[in-house]
Amino acid sequence: MAKDNKTTLLNNINTPADLRKLSIEQLPQVCRELRDFIIESLSQNPGHFASSLGTVELVVALHYVFETPDDKLVWDVGHQAYAHKILTGRRDRFHTNRKLGGIKPFPSPEESEYDAFVAGHASNSISAALGLSVAATMQNRGERVVAIIGDGAMSGGLAFEGLNNVSSMPNNLLIILNDNNMSIDKSVGGMSQLLISMHSSKLYNKIRYAIARGLTNIGLLNRERAKSLTRFNNGLKAMLFRQNNIFEGMCTRYFGPIDGHDVRELVRMLRLVKDMQGPKMLHIHTVKGKGYKPAEQNATVWHQPGIFDAETGERIVSNGGSPRFQDVFGETLLELARKNEKIVGITPAMPSGCSMNILGREMPKRFFDVGIAEGHAVTFSAGLAQGGAMPFCNIYSSFMQRGYDNLIHDAALQRANMVLCLDRAGIVGEDGPTHHGAFDIAYLRPIPNLTIASPYDECELRRLMYTAQLPDKGTFVIRYPRGKGSLVDWRCPLEEIKVGTGRCLTEGNDVALLTLGPIGKLLEPVVKEAADKGVSVAHYDLRFVKPLDEEMLHTIGRKFKKIVTVEDGAVSGGAGSAVTEFMAAHGYTPTIRCIGIPDNFVEHGTPEQLYKICNMDKEAVLGTILQIKE
Amino acid sequence: MAKDNKTTLLNNINTPADLRKLSIEQLPQVCRELRDFIIESLSQNPGHFASSLGTVELVVALHYVFETPDDKLVWDVGHQAYAHKILTGRRDRFHTNRKLGGIKPFPSPEESEYDAFVAGHASNSISAALGLSVAATMQNRGERVVAIIGDGAMSGGLAFEGLNNVSSMPNNLLIILNDNNMSIDKSVGGMSQLLISMHSSKLYNKIRYAIARGLTNIGLLNRERAKSLTRFNNGLKAMLFRQNNIFEGMCTRYFGPIDGHDVRELVRMLRLVKDMQGPKMLHIHTVKGKGYKPAEQNATVWHQPGIFDAETGERIVSNGGSPRFQDVFGETLLELARKNEKIVGITPAMPSGCSMNILGREMPKRFFDVGIAEGHAVTFSAGLAQGGAMPFCNIYSSFMQRGYDNLIHDAALQRANMVLCLDRAGIVGEDGPTHHGAFDIAYLRPIPNLTIASPYDECELRRLMYTAQLPDKGTFVIRYPRGKGSLVDWRCPLEEIKVGTGRCLTEGNDVALLTLGPIGKLLEPVVKEAADKGVSVAHYDLRFVKPLDEEMLHTIGRKFKKIVTVEDGAVSGGAGSAVTEFMAAHGYTPTIRCIGIPDNFVEHGTPEQLYKICNMDKEAVLGTILQIKE
Repeated sequence: MAKDNKTTLLNNINTPADLRKLSIEQLPQVCRELRDFIIESLSQNPGHFASSLGTVELVVALHYVFETPDDKLVWDVGHQAYAHKILTGRRDRFHTNRKLGGIKPFPSPEESEYDAFVAGHASNSISAALGLSVAATMQNRGERVVAIIGDGAMSGGLAFEGLNNVSSMPNNLLIILNDNNMSIDKSVGGMSQLLISMHSSKLYNKIRYAIARGLTNIGLLNRERAKSLTRFNNGLKAMLFRQNNIFEGMCTRYFGPIDGHDVRELVRMLRLVKDMQGPKMLHIHTVKGKGYKPAEQNATVWHQPGIFDAETGERIVSNGGSPRFQDVFGETLLELARKNEKIVGITPAMPSGCSMNILGREMPKRFFDVGIAEGHAVTFSAGLAQGGAMPFCNIYSSFMQRGYDNLIHDAALQRANMVLCLDRAGIVGEDGPTHHGAFDIAYLRPIPNLTIASPYDECELRRLMYTAQLPDKGTFVIRYPRGKGSLVDWRCPLEEIKVGTGRCLTEGNDVALLTLGPIGKLLEPVVKEAADKGVSVAHYDLRFVKPLDEEMLHTIGRKFKKIVTVEDGAVSGGAGSAVTEFMAAHGYTPTIRCIGIPDNFVEHGTPEQLYKICNMDKEAVLGTILQIKE
Repeated sequence: MAKDNKTTLLNNINTPADLRKLSIEQLPQVCRELRDFIIESLSQNPGHFASSLGTVELVVALHYVFETPDDKLVWDVGHQAYAHKILTGRRDRFHTNRKLGGIKPFPSPEESEYDAFVAGHASNSISAALGLSVAATMQNRGERVVAIIGDGAMSGGLAFEGLNNVSSMPNNLLIILNDNNMSIDKSVGGMSQLLISMHSSKLYNKIRYAIARGLTNIGLLNRERAKSLTRFNNGLKAMLFRQNNIFEGMCTRYFGPIDGHDVRELVRMLRLVKDMQGPKMLHIHTVKGKGYKPAEQNATVWHQPGIFDAETGERIVSNGGSPRFQDVFGETLLELARKNEKIVGITPAMPSGCSMNILGREMPKRFFDVGIAEGHAVTFSAGLAQGGAMPFCNIYSSFMQRGYDNLIHDAALQRANMVLCLDRAGIVGEDGPTHHGAFDIAYLRPIPNLTIASPYDECELRRLMYTAQLPDKGTFVIRYPRGKGSLVDWRCPLEEIKVGTGRCLTEGNDVALLTLGPIGKLLEPVVKEAADKGVSVAHYDLRFVKPLDEEMLHTIGRKFKKIVTVEDGAVSGGAGSAVTEFMAAHGYTPTIRCIGIPDNFVEHGTPEQLYKICNMDKEAVLGTILQIKE
């Protein structure tokens, strides 16, 4: 894989200290080699592509100017940080990126001293880096702290909260705004507009200074007037440099925008601001996918393109078979929206990730991409619901942790008629611990008024979506996993499912197997295999975690002394816990084994590998069934 | 109570339609009567005082100009909305405010068609109102929507997310920024600075135009120059009117600031902007506690002053007895901070509410009030921790729902050494369903790496705080309730408690009573009363929900066939659920009754009333014990 003729400089950079021995003239070549290395590597081992290419020059310049790892780099979302990983001792292992036991998908202090803070969920870098910077200042350590945040992440409330606090405490934080006017999908909202219009400020500044100079040059001003002009300029400065843009308005010195692909200019600017006292922001412009034409032209597709031919740019897509759950969601949403004109779709920056772009393309006025802003997505949906619309809000399960209060306070408390679809629920695979949708069942279960369901397969997803948009169903949550379902023929009729009903899939006598969601489908063969071993398993699909199917559970409680529950979610407080609570509350005393994601942060790997590690795969569940039978 | 001579106008206003029959000249009298009514009423029946007085004129002007209830008013936090309640058909019942079965503490659509959206947690109004406004627009309803947000709430990320989206979709939302430069405590951060410096903009505009006029008057400009000045002015306008302040920067038209206590000026301005197309913001200035001198002078104390003498302004405070948990927290934090120089305190806008102002007064540099920004508070604390400091972050339990993802992603995942103290955990009483800290145990329990504890009494709180700040304890959560503890002598020595250990308080043989936190102290008498009825109860203090004291639970599992658990938190997924999971996982099959906050949003009332309703009071628990014994 290594093309040594192309990587003569990169091959000798084992730590940033090696980089810092090079002359500034050599840096463009380092960037070229890095870019080739990333393209080559990701073409064979898939990962976050377009963002990685966009930050090559920035990463080189940062490590060249700052004394890493003493100086701290805090990356906002890890997409940006591949070049950083490659330059900081992980080049030789980079082919293990995102693989089980290999390089982690995102920066992690556990993995490297060069990773100052965990990065996975957007918008956390300013708050985290501010904490690091204030701690350093308080302890009289001279280290510098840099937060690198993309423009898409600036729409998150947390970034604003961080920025709002930057000015009010002692710190020397440098915030780099990596502006490519595109997060995963195109950025939206006023902030994005603001960044675009700020580009004109340079011109404006030139005009302003020319006029001021002109006034003094022609001797028009006496001393009094000069004084008042000073005041005027101070006023003007106050307006322009404190209020003119949001960053200066927040008492944070603002520099830029500059070309983020000119590594020498980046080095020059970073040296200039490096030791300035107080908080400051450097605004740079980059292009997602820079240096790789197909990615530059379609950054959304090339965000995470899978494997591809590095020479031709041809993506190697394995098609056919059953569709992804997200596509069933997207197609069904459009189908429902055609029939129910109250339906609207809301997504926080994931129109293609959750396939809501299918609705967006046909009904743009009924589709709202609110940017990375999960809290707003939920409260806005609740407002739409209270105004008589029927919102389908789709949020990745782990990101929904950002909208938790909104769901309780703004939706459930008012019994807002809205549907919350949690895509990427359960084990997500290679994106690792920040992205597994592990906690949703447990954190949703205590919320009153909520309906919580998970479909067994794609048809069930369609039926649940249909049910949820019927009148007066209250706040209705549907969780389903990343990736493909099990059915090729998924366009079943849209029929109502009675809320709070599970179903018996297979009758049996020895052990009751209660599953929630598509993992039940995955475990279907276990029933047969157990029968082969002489154990008669009754398989129940819970379907609803809330309300529970009490009639079905009474039947199970009366009949079975051995119960195994399986869910693709945290076992602590999850669906199995709900079943256990029910049995205890009603005086049933079966032996219960609850299987699910164990009480630790599950690492990255393929879903199959991780199910195995969590003892949620077929063999492990069969083992548990055979064991409990004894 | 009613002083009819003072309320001749108010007494005839049963709905806003009655108000709208009055002439504009009569409005100041309505405001005076309303203010007197609030002062009189709250002096006898305590509530949110200072904020209520600050919005009297605004409420009158809004209902005078807008066609409520067809037009929708969305209040941000309910503190502001008392006058609104009084004018909208709830005057005669206003003396029941905050009482069990009486008027709700905050706006609620369930209570009145004039309450367009629930208000309790700050910063939700813009997102919610935007939803209402977009829904109205889509359905071609002409209703107007107004969000009324305080400046303190503007520091919340959700408000920013809302604002960021206001400009990007079709709506005619009016946002009223009620600026008193003070939320519950003084506002902090850059946003606050920004609002202050915006006040100077009028002066600046005058200067700017004067200079521009000056230039043309003296004939200095030829046509080319005039053109370039036009461009300059356009540029300037773009800067000032689109970027100059954050609101215009977000493409939202900005008006103000104006005097929010001049009801006629308010009416004039509201009429002006009422039917303007597109989103707009009106910035008004008000004084917390307006019209009641003691409250104007100390709005923090008069935020929620309790009962007082309306004539003299003397607050009637019942002192003596045991201290409040929050004060034990505050005093102990200072004590610990004197010994451990790494300790810092972080609070999102509640320095007096959680008594962290005790630290703030003595060690201002080690105290951080980050404003209403719970997410930032947690991530910033995690950053401080990763930088080597030892943060104590104190957040009200129900507000912590806003920092949920931050706790998972930024703290627990990295095992950040920090302490999260959740004040106001469990039933909080009169503040009602938005403020009960009901869900924390359930939503925290699935998070890996976390330690979760609750003290039995004040001494235990001190010992847990001491333990939590010892080296390498990871992310450590301590939850405790609102109000007073049980000990007068609470300054016990600071000793370590072994993490994950409970304790047996009373030995017994028939029933095991497992409690978590101060509710266990409250239930102490039950053990004796049960003994009087012939039931021998063993009382265990769980102390830690995570990790559980497995040794103690094995002992209990082996010895008891009857277990009752009690916690001041949601029973679904809570501590009792953890005990039930444990028993099931280890093959114990006792009968278990879990007592806690039931699966609905508990209304407002005194804590004693609400405990009774939730069957968590002494009588109910005794009843459960006697019943399970049989």
